[in-house]
Amino acid sequence: MAGEAEARYIKARQEALLERLNARKLDALVVTRPANVFYLTGFRGSAGIALFTARASSLLVDPRYTLQAQDQAVGVEVSEVTDGLLHAAGHSVRKARVKRPAFEDASLTVSEFQALKRAAPAALDWQPAGEAVEELRAVKDPLEVENIRQAGELTAQVFADVERTIRPGVSENDLAAEIEYRMRTRGADGAAFETIVASGPRGALPHARPTGRVLRAKELVIIDLGAILGGYASDMTRTVHLGKPSRRTVALYRAVLEAQMKGIESLKAGVQARSVDGAARHALTKRHLAKFFTHSTGHGVGIEIHERPRLAKSEKKKIPPGSVVTVEPGIYLEGLGGVRIEDTVLVSQNGAEILTPAPKSPWWVE
Amino acid sequence: MAGEAEARYIKARQEALLERLNARKLDALVVTRPANVFYLTGFRGSAGIALFTARASSLLVDPRYTLQAQDQAVGVEVSEVTDGLLHAAGHSVRKARVKRPAFEDASLTVSEFQALKRAAPAALDWQPAGEAVEELRAVKDPLEVENIRQAGELTAQVFADVERTIRPGVSENDLAAEIEYRMRTRGADGAAFETIVASGPRGALPHARPTGRVLRAKELVIIDLGAILGGYASDMTRTVHLGKPSRRTVALYRAVLEAQMKGIESLKAGVQARSVDGAARHALTKRHLAKFFTHSTGHGVGIEIHERPRLAKSEKKKIPPGSVVTVEPGIYLEGLGGVRIEDTVLVSQNGAEILTPAPKSPWWVE
Repeated sequence: MAGEAEARYIKARQEALLERLNARKLDALVVTRPANVFYLTGFRGSAGIALFTARASSLLVDPRYTLQAQDQAVGVEVSEVTDGLLHAAGHSVRKARVKRPAFEDASLTVSEFQALKRAAPAALDWQPAGEAVEELRAVKDPLEVENIRQAGELTAQVFADVERTIRPGVSENDLAAEIEYRMRTRGADGAAFETIVASGPRGALPHARPTGRVLRAKELVIIDLGAILGGYASDMTRTVHLGKPSRRTVALYRAVLEAQMKGIESLKAGVQARSVDGAARHALTKRHLAKFFTHSTGHGVGIEIHERPRLAKSEKKKIPPGSVVTVEPGIYLEGLGGVRIEDTVLVSQNGAEILTPAPKSPWWVE
Repeated sequence: MAGEAEARYIKARQEALLERLNARKLDALVVTRPANVFYLTGFRGSAGIALFTARASSLLVDPRYTLQAQDQAVGVEVSEVTDGLLHAAGHSVRKARVKRPAFEDASLTVSEFQALKRAAPAALDWQPAGEAVEELRAVKDPLEVENIRQAGELTAQVFADVERTIRPGVSENDLAAEIEYRMRTRGADGAAFETIVASGPRGALPHARPTGRVLRAKELVIIDLGAILGGYASDMTRTVHLGKPSRRTVALYRAVLEAQMKGIESLKAGVQARSVDGAARHALTKRHLAKFFTHSTGHGVGIEIHERPRLAKSEKKKIPPGSVVTVEPGIYLEGLGGVRIEDTVLVSQNGAEILTPAPKSPWWVE
């Protein structure tokens, strides 16, 4: 059962949602995205639909999840349904006698929306909600920050646990397995994404999956890991060189580290997202490395590993206080490998606080 | 790079798709679901859109995935796009001069479909593809069967690895961590889903996540695990009793085991899915336990952990040869716990072959 503090935060999220619906003259929202259902109700099952209206809020689950929903959900009436969640949600909309309901067009599939509409009155004026709940989720409440902080600390501890394993002779797969094992034994719900261990030339693939390839001396290794704890994710990358690095490798590493620090230094509430991307990118442009930085600087982290806000080149939106984002510049050189350095950080009025406190130096092993 | 045999199978899948489109008078399909993109091209990145027309086939990826796509994809021209995958896909549809393209309404969200349509000519007669590719995927080719067989064997080996760890005093989390660690060290890509370890009364929650709860003597433990190997999943559940079981517990276990065996025995190509569910359910009805069997008997397994066909009460479809499905009856008794036994099996003309060869007996530990 949800603790008192947790229940209070969840109810505040529900109130914020209802205000937002009211402002857009929407009289209901059918919440179908599992992360949004969790955010708004506390229910962590993988299947469930929540319906929010000004008068009543409900959570529909199938029989697999009835006990769990009754245990976890806050501020909603739990109903067990056996004839399909979307069908039941359409009926609930009918019973609620609303006229202008919204649906989550950013996550509901075209065919799911058809099923929802079929079970509801034909005359309804359905409205796309856009990312209404995702926008609320971009600003974390103190309970969420605490969860992400703990997930970040756990992630940094796991990196310390395995640091001595990052040696020539170990395979990418074994190192990834060791990382995920340590996450679980330290109490994580699991990995937030498939742990990346990309060694040598494979580091040039920004999203390489680990393979049986064995780490060798005189190579860079990118390790990108994140744990989920209490339903919240963290995201961190460190790059390690095996053996004493060449001057060129040192220059590459320092350039990325500088880019990452410049990105973090530029972050505070109210700045445009693109200016953070620009700060990181500029540090690489100065060293003629920007063309190897082939992705965006960062993304929000929370219940999901990729959330709002995006720290991208063209993103003009201002970053709100209470955002939690990654800052993760990287460079990728075909044939040679890659360097990426990433932290999850909390954005406040005064600046940014690192939530994944693993050292970035020393970064090579003898 | 894909091996020759792999390339041949992938090209055969592309031909089967084009025939199917032709039969429905569709002149293109925009493939957006990652599992379908992998099935049809061999590309395993998480973001990419494939476009198939009678004249040409292409795969659009963002710069993160260009090298990987060039390395993995078969029978498609790889294009790197920087202005959004859906936008680029709309443009590709425009350039292909098709009139009646299909889109994956079962996985494309309402807002993604809007973005795709906006970039394509307004006059196009867009058609929902339904689950066209998922239907192809329901029948596994020999390459796929081999992958699932290896994933299933690995899963059974992992269960044997950890069998001596299933003892009073170990926590659900530690056991789940050990299982996932063994998967990785045995070469799996990862777990196909979050490993379930549900002990004692928690076994009454069919989809319980592991917790810090410590296993105790005189309790049932449900362990539901599956590895991904070569991009293919497996799914297996075993239930273990810690200590000598009571006569009632023995009766419950035997009833579920009988239900599972009856389900497997009833399985062969051409039977209706509901008759397999019926065979398993009937074995429990005889013992007045059917009311505790609160879910369906099984589901297809392949690139994804839940695929076609569904082995459900009301499913009249016939099961095609080459299907790979789970058979997993279970009973859940509030306060007491649960018993579930599950294998992944291959369906052929003659019957069903178990692909997760872990013993179901002995099922209690002293």
